[in-house]
Amino acid sequence: MNAKNLIDLPELSREELDELIKLAGAIMKNPTNYIDNCHGKIMASLFYEPSTRTQMSFQTAMIRLGGSTIGFDNPVNSSVSKGESLKDTVRVISNYTDVIVIRNPYEGSAFAASMFSRVPVINAGDGGHLHPTQTLTDLVTLWYEKGRLDNLTIGLCGDIKNGRTVHSLIKSLSKYEGNKFVIISTPQLQAPQYIIDVLEANGCEYSFSTNLEIRMPELDVLYMTRIQRERFASQEEYEKQKGIYVLDLHKLKNAKKELKILHPLPRVDEIAIEVDDDPRAKYFEQTEYGMYARMALIEGMLKNREKTMPKTIQSTHNEKCHNPRCITSVESYLPNLFTRGGNGRLICSYCEHELKK
Amino acid sequence: MNAKNLIDLPELSREELDELIKLAGAIMKNPTNYIDNCHGKIMASLFYEPSTRTQMSFQTAMIRLGGSTIGFDNPVNSSVSKGESLKDTVRVISNYTDVIVIRNPYEGSAFAASMFSRVPVINAGDGGHLHPTQTLTDLVTLWYEKGRLDNLTIGLCGDIKNGRTVHSLIKSLSKYEGNKFVIISTPQLQAPQYIIDVLEANGCEYSFSTNLEIRMPELDVLYMTRIQRERFASQEEYEKQKGIYVLDLHKLKNAKKELKILHPLPRVDEIAIEVDDDPRAKYFEQTEYGMYARMALIEGMLKNREKTMPKTIQSTHNEKCHNPRCITSVESYLPNLFTRGGNGRLICSYCEHELKK
Amino acid sequence: MNAKNLIDLPELSREELDELIKLAGAIMKNPTNYIDNCHGKIMASLFYEPSTRTQMSFQTAMIRLGGSTIGFDNPVNSSVSKGESLKDTVRVISNYTDVIVIRNPYEGSAFAASMFSRVPVINAGDGGHLHPTQTLTDLVTLWYEKGRLDNLTIGLCGDIKNGRTVHSLIKSLSKYEGNKFVIISTPQLQAPQYIIDVLEANGCEYSFSTNLEIRMPELDVLYMTRIQRERFASQEEYEKQKGIYVLDLHKLKNAKKELKILHPLPRVDEIAIEVDDDPRAKYFEQTEYGMYARMALIEGMLKNREKTMPKTIQSTHNEKCHNPRCITSVESYLPNLFTRGGNGRLICSYCEHELKK
Repeated sequence: MNAKNLIDLPELSREELDELIKLAGAIMKNPTNYIDNCHGKIMASLFYEPSTRTQMSFQTAMIRLGGSTIGFDNPVNSSVSKGESLKDTVRVISNYTDVIVIRNPYEGSAFAASMFSRVPVINAGDGGHLHPTQTLTDLVTLWYEKGRLDNLTIGLCGDIKNGRTVHSLIKSLSKYEGNKFVIISTPQLQAPQYIIDVLEANGCEYSFSTNLEIRMPELDVLYMTRIQRERFASQEEYEKQKGIYVLDLHKLKNAKKELKILHPLPRVDEIAIEVDDDPRAKYFEQTEYGMYARMALIEGMLKNREKTMPKTIQSTHNEKCHNPRCITSVESYLPNLFTRGGNGRLICSYCEHELKK
Repeated sequence: MNAKNLIDLPELSREELDELIKLAGAIMKNPTNYIDNCHGKIMASLFYEPSTRTQMSFQTAMIRLGGSTIGFDNPVNSSVSKGESLKDTVRVISNYTDVIVIRNPYEGSAFAASMFSRVPVINAGDGGHLHPTQTLTDLVTLWYEKGRLDNLTIGLCGDIKNGRTVHSLIKSLSKYEGNKFVIISTPQLQAPQYIIDVLEANGCEYSFSTNLEIRMPELDVLYMTRIQRERFASQEEYEKQKGIYVLDLHKLKNAKKELKILHPLPRVDEIAIEVDDDPRAKYFEQTEYGMYARMALIEGMLKNREKTMPKTIQSTHNEKCHNPRCITSVESYLPNLFTRGGNGRLICSYCEHELKK
Repeated sequence: MNAKNLIDLPELSREELDELIKLAGAIMKNPTNYIDNCHGKIMASLFYEPSTRTQMSFQTAMIRLGGSTIGFDNPVNSSVSKGESLKDTVRVISNYTDVIVIRNPYEGSAFAASMFSRVPVINAGDGGHLHPTQTLTDLVTLWYEKGRLDNLTIGLCGDIKNGRTVHSLIKSLSKYEGNKFVIISTPQLQAPQYIIDVLEANGCEYSFSTNLEIRMPELDVLYMTRIQRERFASQEEYEKQKGIYVLDLHKLKNAKKELKILHPLPRVDEIAIEVDDDPRAKYFEQTEYGMYARMALIEGMLKNREKTMPKTIQSTHNEKCHNPRCITSVESYLPNLFTRGGNGRLICSYCEHELKK
């Protein structure tokens, strides 16, 4: 792999992505061939917010390659509680280790970390912004369950407005030919404009629906998402939404025999437990594909990789990003980096928010 | 080993138990012979309540076999904080790992976990219910310290009413010939009826006493237990009990030279520190036997073990268990499983509580 | 190495220290030669207060030697929360592992731990008292950055009154010939008398200053220290002090080209970020030297080491230490150990405090 870091999936060329997917399959087939590939190597998992599932998946991936892991899963136990900057933590940990996996509630934090790390940085979630290895997991799952990533009719159901992983999946699949997207949700949880722009830009066929059951028969893939309490203003608003679109065996009555049901997990109750035993349910297998996907990623990133300190980056503008969830709002030493959007507005290179004028 | 899981010790046949004890001794003798037996294998330790001692013992056992460990020791850092079911957590973690060690405050939780795991599940404590590897530790300790598990006079002192480990030890030793039990405690902390039933059923000689010193001379083994604050209604009630039966050198004056003193640890003050240097004190060695016992268990369980998904189990009855500490009270999707007791009453297969009518 | 434990640096002979420094360099040069030296060995890191930085450095060191680690970083998750004594924890953990790294807020805790451990104990910080591996790190850094540990003019700036690591560094460097010490701080944060006594006893040249910039030109080494909030009575007192002596490029204007800037890290804001890119800044490299220093220490300690239980130590006096931060104030079973100071007063062997009469 050429890419040193994985902050967002588009950093990977189509070739690199295909290569990763094939490597994941090769590992899946003969895991013992890779059992010592990372012998003596160390992964740091810096989790500024707990996410046991994601952390365990990365730890397992590194261990199954023969490597070891260190890290923390709780800010109060970390040096940050002594007021240390992200820069210093990353700079030091990259002296100790060979790859850094970071999860941090601030948007753009993984990108910021990569500016100071001597080793590859993998984004394991930066707030509501990006979570590329989940999408890599989804693509690997689809490839090995459907045999292709193109000419699929993909239903996306649940919280399409806030669902980070759904946005990323749409962005990736829209680049493959002949994919159709059926976006199923309530008006309040509909896809944001920029996702529609992506679909338009890639000339994808797409449609909206508020009824899961009616659209079921045409789907090759059904991607269910969790409706997260934290996304709603009030408990009442949450209760009102979350019940809707619960997938059960009844709704699956007219689904294709070859339908594959995916879910990023953890689920709350958007999929009835009775569905778990249906052969079309693949969300548990999906987690195993995720382990192989992360093994392939780490293997590809560490192969023939020397430790190198990135060049210091200078500010491109004097403005500061106004997004309170942007990493630049708490790590003041970070350079101000913006690009010009189509509309001429400045877009923050950390959190991708438009600079309000 | 045939047994896939270790939820409770009786699951192991007498042959399997003897085999484990012998294997523990073999490892003790030549640990380096086993240093890579679990190379490339991963143990998940899912501790829904902290127990550093137990967790470290399991981690050490796995590492000394050449394996690795992942897991959590704190529910707030785990996916459960996102409201994930035990089923989903276990189903996913069993995709990542080769064996699961679980500790959970709800009774029957380990059994419930084993219903959804593709890999062996070891019960590291399910509330006040079971803790089989502690008993395995006690048996290995007795075997290598006394040279036998039969024809022993065993004193059990302290909290015999609530002491999970004492109950399990009595159940196991009552199956060996010629063992005599001296149960030493206050009336309030006496053995429950079902333990007395076990002793009767196995035709064991047993007696009760409130005086440790008087019964000391006849003992081959003295098993001391901690008096746990959490078992008492009030601090005052606790204070009143805990001072009693503190073992000191004076009380040991008339003990046999070959007496072996055991304690599950951690102790508070039921054994005076002056006793630590007495050659009869074996409670620290006991922890090392425990490490070898767990190494033998993991080695035996993982040998030639393929990942297999257990069959789905259907409810046997429509009733629900009424025990608020039963795992079924919080994981509602679990099937209702009951067996008929001698008295015709239904007994919950998770927590072994009788269904009140 | 002869020394079984590392509680304080003076335990190491000059020869052992030189040997460690050389070994650290050898590992640095060919790390792969040491990649399996501790294969099958386990390090316990018992952190009774969180210090991610220090813990990760030790974990990395052990892993890079092919060993594994277990431990905790949070007292609430540890057995201590069940009221277990330090003695019992150490006694048991030393049954499981091959070396114990301990950090504990009470002074003398590491020494106390070494009295009950079958394996080497390394002090990773006992309150404000000692932190020998930081000093070992500083010495290794100086040796490989300056090529010598003698005939250096060393500036020490910041909190010299409370700075544990600074005191330890002065003690060590004062034993080497021709070193000059320039102590730069406010009157309130000046060096304590006992440090001045050390300098006098070793016949070292030393001077005091309140002005960093003026003394800069003569320095070969500048050791900056963090001004810790917890050292001050009030937030206001803290604010007043911490701003002073912030190192920036302007203050470095007249510094030697060969100056080396060190800092134990984490820093808050006593070094401006602009200094990070100055080639004289070595505080990030310092953390990597620290990893090699700890690798050398562990390698040296574990080589041909058998597990042995230390002899029981008897009290030397009837007095009890009055220092509330001394480990003896919370672990009452510890023997009372005192030595006579020059002034005839008793000095506690745990915390080195003089017994008030």
